[in-house]
Amino acid sequence: MKNIFVIGAGRSATTLIAYLLENAERFDWHISVGELDVSLAERKLNGHARSRAIAFDVFNAEQRKEEISKADIVISMLPASMHIEVAKDCLAFGKHMTTASYISKEMKALDGAAKEKGLIFLNEIGLDPGIDHLSAIKLIDEIRAKGGDIQHFESFTGGLVAPESDDNPWHYKFTWNPRNVVLASQGGAVKFIHNGKYKYIPYNRVFRRTEYIMIEGLGEFEGYANRDSLAYREVYNLQNVKTLYRGTLRRPGFSRWWDTFVQLGMTDDSYVMEDSETMTNRDFINSFLPFSLKDSVELKVRAMLKLDQDDRLMEKLTWLGLFEKTKIGLKNATPAQILQHILEQKWAMKPNDKDMIVMWHKVGFLKDGKKFVTESSMMVKGDDQHNTAMAKTVGLPLAISTQMILEGKIKERGVCLPLSADIYLPVLAELAKNGISFTEKTYPVEEFDT
Amino acid sequence: MKNIFVIGAGRSATTLIAYLLENAERFDWHISVGELDVSLAERKLNGHARSRAIAFDVFNAEQRKEEISKADIVISMLPASMHIEVAKDCLAFGKHMTTASYISKEMKALDGAAKEKGLIFLNEIGLDPGIDHLSAIKLIDEIRAKGGDIQHFESFTGGLVAPESDDNPWHYKFTWNPRNVVLASQGGAVKFIHNGKYKYIPYNRVFRRTEYIMIEGLGEFEGYANRDSLAYREVYNLQNVKTLYRGTLRRPGFSRWWDTFVQLGMTDDSYVMEDSETMTNRDFINSFLPFSLKDSVELKVRAMLKLDQDDRLMEKLTWLGLFEKTKIGLKNATPAQILQHILEQKWAMKPNDKDMIVMWHKVGFLKDGKKFVTESSMMVKGDDQHNTAMAKTVGLPLAISTQMILEGKIKERGVCLPLSADIYLPVLAELAKNGISFTEKTYPVEEFDT
Repeated sequence: MKNIFVIGAGRSATTLIAYLLENAERFDWHISVGELDVSLAERKLNGHARSRAIAFDVFNAEQRKEEISKADIVISMLPASMHIEVAKDCLAFGKHMTTASYISKEMKALDGAAKEKGLIFLNEIGLDPGIDHLSAIKLIDEIRAKGGDIQHFESFTGGLVAPESDDNPWHYKFTWNPRNVVLASQGGAVKFIHNGKYKYIPYNRVFRRTEYIMIEGLGEFEGYANRDSLAYREVYNLQNVKTLYRGTLRRPGFSRWWDTFVQLGMTDDSYVMEDSETMTNRDFINSFLPFSLKDSVELKVRAMLKLDQDDRLMEKLTWLGLFEKTKIGLKNATPAQILQHILEQKWAMKPNDKDMIVMWHKVGFLKDGKKFVTESSMMVKGDDQHNTAMAKTVGLPLAISTQMILEGKIKERGVCLPLSADIYLPVLAELAKNGISFTEKTYPVEEFDT
Repeated sequence: MKNIFVIGAGRSATTLIAYLLENAERFDWHISVGELDVSLAERKLNGHARSRAIAFDVFNAEQRKEEISKADIVISMLPASMHIEVAKDCLAFGKHMTTASYISKEMKALDGAAKEKGLIFLNEIGLDPGIDHLSAIKLIDEIRAKGGDIQHFESFTGGLVAPESDDNPWHYKFTWNPRNVVLASQGGAVKFIHNGKYKYIPYNRVFRRTEYIMIEGLGEFEGYANRDSLAYREVYNLQNVKTLYRGTLRRPGFSRWWDTFVQLGMTDDSYVMEDSETMTNRDFINSFLPFSLKDSVELKVRAMLKLDQDDRLMEKLTWLGLFEKTKIGLKNATPAQILQHILEQKWAMKPNDKDMIVMWHKVGFLKDGKKFVTESSMMVKGDDQHNTAMAKTVGLPLAISTQMILEGKIKERGVCLPLSADIYLPVLAELAKNGISFTEKTYPVEEFDT
């Protein structure tokens, strides 16, 4: 029997745990789930005979070492910064490990030691990073195998509300960590390459430099740029590509509306506002506007953003309650925390709402002197509020790759990314069986850029 | 005989050193000037009998201790971050010290020890900080002495080119450290209070939220907000004031034109641009604009900034050479470094150009149930490229207060600011004798805010 130790039983772990339980008998697994709030782990394990819920604190070194020493593989669903302690114990006790997070410098530093011990620490095997890697590399490898010379690569992913649950004027709800949404694109300029030219976008322009994207069968989207696309030249072996651009999908219009908060200064997380506890929503927005003895907050917003009287953006702000005299009630809060608090009251998923993940790649290549584009897209919807599209797309690749490691089907060792055909082919095949599949189309073009 | 040790003989030290030499005989002083480049010190001392130039490296602890031990007082003209090592030695050897820099936390921590040893470390006694404190506190004390209840306080200072040397379309030249100009307002949101309401301005709005200021005899200016005005409530004992706003003066229009660079992302100092050495000015501006197969860089700028065809801003950008195919030639440079490099070629002071310092305070107060405003303004011009307005206004208050300390006329001890009448009255009186004086006018108003 193989022991799998899952650390963390939060929202993203639902499908992962369900998949492991479903396959426990077949592969002779025992599943331990460690979570600070043990009842959360208990609910997800639902008394399965091959499972055990543990009240687990990752900062309790003794407990952490004990549980890791008993496992054959550890799946860490902890926040990215906390993986490293788990990884060090995995190294000490000779255990494999999988995560859905970006490889940190500290994690990368364990590469040599992990290889020496014959261990694999497989990271970035969730959704984004994860399925984006698997599907992009597969596409790239296939085009090259057919003699295509790749010139252009774009990739966008978005976590959205499903169309049937899209009932608000922003066409957006929080389907994942709201704080990450509020802080999106902060902390450094966007960098990418477009037709051989390096391009940079400051934070105050990111949400106004979007790309319109039409995906057959899924409708219209827009994409804004992620922070550093240049790093993917090496990861995807695209050193000579002329255009490399990765971004985030939203429904059309969202980025311009969101930019209101950026322009006003409401997404700033670097300072605490005076009187945040006693201020109202209306005071909050007014604190970013010039003082006036007479003018209304509404008119000051319109004037600052240069909005015509019929611009529907004002209705969207009004709908959020930004002009209401509702007490905020948060002590020592930053603008970003207050904005998140206001948005959470309006953008919360309702009990029967479904989320949706959309991924889209566009690869431009030369073949026989002609230009072609392959578009590849994927859409997954959540089943309900537990088995969300996000939980499926993060959990399934983790579960599948964990199974493959336990079965000895992955030969790679060290701290790695899922970039080899040994990994991406079987994982994508198993994902397709679970309703996560890509639709491709290839067509000739005059230019890669429109 | 008293020994004065001046550390640093750069541009800001010219008037300071000249004043000390002029008064050396009268007060029986000997002036030592330490500078890495000893010829710089020699030129400024010009062989004066009561002086000595020293090739001095502040990081050479042995030399630093030796020279400080021989002095009666040390004037540190070093960059702000370097004062602390000098201060520690002054403490060890029992020497007074003066600087024109903001008090750092490390400096503040020496307060108790300095008091115990009967020493004064007088800081913020240059221009800004310096003359702004002296003149503001004098104004505040006078209004209160006459029974005025202060409700409103604004203060602006600017280092500008003198009108007779103002021959470029930006009405601005670098009269001081260009890097500080390029990085102005970065590193945190602007905070102030206006009519009892806390106000915050993000970096991307600072240069579009300016105030128009007309100063009698000096003409029109505009002011943009400095980063944290709130700290001055305590410093100036203005805890109950309804409006507190400090800022920087420019000629009207400058801030909107400067905002171009902010909006494009050209003032970012956080990353190095790819190919900065081989790119041209035109490539530089284009790297912040969307890719286009056909459109010109000029049209893309106009479209992004929403400039009408007759907007003169385009001529100002053109005049700077931003659209020219001139090689930049800087290795591994940040956007801010490249922008500075381009601006320095156009905004340099010519040999006969004169600089100008303008300071303006506006204090609103209640008296006998009525509202009044006192405006106080100061203007100094440079004599030539050595005795600049900046060198005079930074150097004279330092020199005068140093003299007062040596004469035993300042009783305060510890790490302090020049906020008491004992200091500000005689320093301002001596400044007036040297051509640095304030003009005041008081008039009734309906409201403090217009």
